[in-house]
Amino acid sequence: MAPALRPRPVPPVLLFSLLPVAAWLLIRPLLDPVPLPALYASLGLSLFALVGTLFLIPALGPTFVRADLKGRDLLKTYDDPIPESLGLVCASIYILLLILFIPFAFSDSFVTHTGRTERARHGIVVHEFPHHQLSVYLSSLLSLLMATMLGFLDDVFDIRWRHKLPIPIIASIPLLIVYYAERGATDVVVPLPLRWLLGPLLNLGPLYYVYMSLLSTFCTNSINILAGINGSETSQALIIAVSVILNDLLYLPWPVGFRIALPLHLLGRPAEVDFGGAWHAGMAYGSRILVERHLFSLYFMMPLVAVCAGFLYHNWYPARAFPGDTLCYVTGMAFAVVGIQAHFSKTLLLFFLPQIFNFVLSCPQLFGLVPCPRHRVPRFDSETGLLHPSKAEFKEKPPSSLATLILHVFAALGLVQLTTNERTGVISETTNLTILNVLLLRLGPMREETLTKALICTQVAGSVFAFAVRYGLAGLVYDGNRR
Amino acid sequence: MAPALRPRPVPPVLLFSLLPVAAWLLIRPLLDPVPLPALYASLGLSLFALVGTLFLIPALGPTFVRADLKGRDLLKTYDDPIPESLGLVCASIYILLLILFIPFAFSDSFVTHTGRTERARHGIVVHEFPHHQLSVYLSSLLSLLMATMLGFLDDVFDIRWRHKLPIPIIASIPLLIVYYAERGATDVVVPLPLRWLLGPLLNLGPLYYVYMSLLSTFCTNSINILAGINGSETSQALIIAVSVILNDLLYLPWPVGFRIALPLHLLGRPAEVDFGGAWHAGMAYGSRILVERHLFSLYFMMPLVAVCAGFLYHNWYPARAFPGDTLCYVTGMAFAVVGIQAHFSKTLLLFFLPQIFNFVLSCPQLFGLVPCPRHRVPRFDSETGLLHPSKAEFKEKPPSSLATLILHVFAALGLVQLTTNERTGVISETTNLTILNVLLLRLGPMREETLTKALICTQVAGSVFAFAVRYGLAGLVYDGNRR
Repeated sequence: MAPALRPRPVPPVLLFSLLPVAAWLLIRPLLDPVPLPALYASLGLSLFALVGTLFLIPALGPTFVRADLKGRDLLKTYDDPIPESLGLVCASIYILLLILFIPFAFSDSFVTHTGRTERARHGIVVHEFPHHQLSVYLSSLLSLLMATMLGFLDDVFDIRWRHKLPIPIIASIPLLIVYYAERGATDVVVPLPLRWLLGPLLNLGPLYYVYMSLLSTFCTNSINILAGINGSETSQALIIAVSVILNDLLYLPWPVGFRIALPLHLLGRPAEVDFGGAWHAGMAYGSRILVERHLFSLYFMMPLVAVCAGFLYHNWYPARAFPGDTLCYVTGMAFAVVGIQAHFSKTLLLFFLPQIFNFVLSCPQLFGLVPCPRHRVPRFDSETGLLHPSKAEFKEKPPSSLATLILHVFAALGLVQLTTNERTGVISETTNLTILNVLLLRLGPMREETLTKALICTQVAGSVFAFAVRYGLAGLVYDGNRR
Repeated sequence: MAPALRPRPVPPVLLFSLLPVAAWLLIRPLLDPVPLPALYASLGLSLFALVGTLFLIPALGPTFVRADLKGRDLLKTYDDPIPESLGLVCASIYILLLILFIPFAFSDSFVTHTGRTERARHGIVVHEFPHHQLSVYLSSLLSLLMATMLGFLDDVFDIRWRHKLPIPIIASIPLLIVYYAERGATDVVVPLPLRWLLGPLLNLGPLYYVYMSLLSTFCTNSINILAGINGSETSQALIIAVSVILNDLLYLPWPVGFRIALPLHLLGRPAEVDFGGAWHAGMAYGSRILVERHLFSLYFMMPLVAVCAGFLYHNWYPARAFPGDTLCYVTGMAFAVVGIQAHFSKTLLLFFLPQIFNFVLSCPQLFGLVPCPRHRVPRFDSETGLLHPSKAEFKEKPPSSLATLILHVFAALGLVQLTTNERTGVISETTNLTILNVLLLRLGPMREETLTKALICTQVAGSVFAFAVRYGLAGLVYDGNRR
């Protein structure tokens, strides 16, 4: 077998150590009532997801290659086919486990059995999910499954770039329809400086649905266009999911006496971060709805982290498996689902800062002002093994005056490197407008693995900044009840 | 383009005549309250599904061929590739319209707006769907979407026969899980002759879930194994769906004064068929639950008939498009869904009589008693253009004594034709054990189109017989409240 195809071995000790822990977490709430039984089950299922992904990806790779779902790694010296679209395996495990999770979160027998004891123990009553929320959960699953399906169709039929932009909108239809049928809220909280004009709450009406479908389109496509090097899509999704989880944890009702000295107060406005002294009720301030919303988000994010981590093991440089569009679609839709259903889409967008930066930077190429080659991945120098910024040439016609202006601004900001005709001063070449090329431009040529790590650092820095903005600066424009 | 690939033209008059009718049916309940508004919407959406299938199948055929989803028609003289797996298009249209239907059936604004007026008009109050039934509907959609997905994966990865048998069980998980979480009934009505032993109702408990998953496996695979000639899968699904619709219609609360002299009383036990005189309340005897269940079934079956009819137009001899496994999976799952959720699985199985016959007949080949070639389709004689029964040879070893016994019984019943070694009397060859070969054996060699028609007649005869049993004979073993 070709060396690139040989799957990365998974230590069997992982199997033997993780499975008992996972099983214990699933059974734990049945043996002895715990405050949030479904959270234990979710954690247990996530460990199953991790083990499943770790072992199934290498096992199914050859099947994908045989079905012609394979690609060549553009940034390597070898030409061996790498199995592609394996995000399908991640998505299938993810969705199947979310379905198997339903009885843990919604079955009367399970929830009330443990709920009653819990009520006796704690001040705050958390019913986990009201029974009617099952339809919201199911519509989210439908959207995820549609995103998976459409992502896989995209991989099989190789849908053209412009045609696939609206695909996430189709996948978000179940979400929107059930949101409508359930008469979901379409109000947004107005920032303080605008309240004199709009009042505290603004009902966006149908515009809210447009906003939701655009959110799913953005989450999906922004991960998709920040691709090209081993592990880039997967690690982005992983870090965003971890950030969402950290944010959710702030809202859980922690047991009394459990205190964390959050370093958040270093980020300014300490009074805003100290949220009333008693940490045990978390950021939810004892609000059942807020706790439920963030539990909902946790139930979707924990298994997502698990499948992404498991897949990253095989997708890490040198990649033994490619995610395909399927992974971007399903992770993007998962983020949109929690942002919409748990009502923290603004916070969610903060975790997408590197993607927003990459999208804004890409716009001149996406909208045709600057030529856009089929691949904008960095250029691989096979002699040194280093990556260099790749370039787009103005072959057919010189840049318009708008394009010239934008490129000069980008160049002044150090985001692109331009090649100009010495005689006329007209731009003949520019480095491609992606965050990966910017990193290579600022930090110099580097190995692919180092670039992935640099991207991960950028994403982590973005999330840290996001937390600072959310819990430090948001108090400037929103009052106490910030969502 | 090859002649077989050239799509069958669709008269544009269909587009212009059907679309206004469909739109009118959708808008109708909003203009003037009608008794069952969602039923109008469902009918309107079904017409959209019909138009969509008719026009999209030929439009997308070349895309499927390019993605290597194509097959050769084994029973033709030409070798041109025919687009395969186009059941995916049918399934996508079907599921998308079922999703778009949600607000019509579940949105408060729509249902209560018309519901109030309706209450004033009619004696029977029909709320269509209680709000909590939305989760049941959504879990059905999830199962349908999973069946579609798995069917398409089967087409892409060409999963082996024995490995794909349990696939419908996986697809039915959402159905079962939500059934469990919603604490669905697991009782069955005990037939009269057994009541002295078991009582009137028997709680099957976990066995009921086994029964449900087996039902979905049976519905899916039984359509799948009755395949092989142009239009066979599609026409089976179409006739079963129409039969289910006819059965559902019996339970709707028809307007007062609307009477049909059912010919059912000719089939024996007239007192049992005359159901209490007042036809307007239908077989539901005014029971809201029964009406709602059969409305649920209608909402799933009407668009299914539409996509099957639209697809049959292109799948009819000589086929311009093949359904692939996707169509069998999604139609089979749709039947299982309505059988389970609307609680008429026994009646449903009656409509599968030809499939049950075909399955029982196939068992010796499915379970390895008789050799099973890759394809059991009839043999095509390219000179006469007629189909003949195909044969399975005992090449490696002679038939076991059990196989010999079974084959001799089948031969005595006229279901197979055996070739025996003249000297030893040992069976050396048998016609393949499928209903198609039985038809060819009994009726003589015929053209493929005629065989499809013969199969359709068999299916229709089966449904007529099923109605006779259900409404004629069932009174012998069940009392009045028959379900």
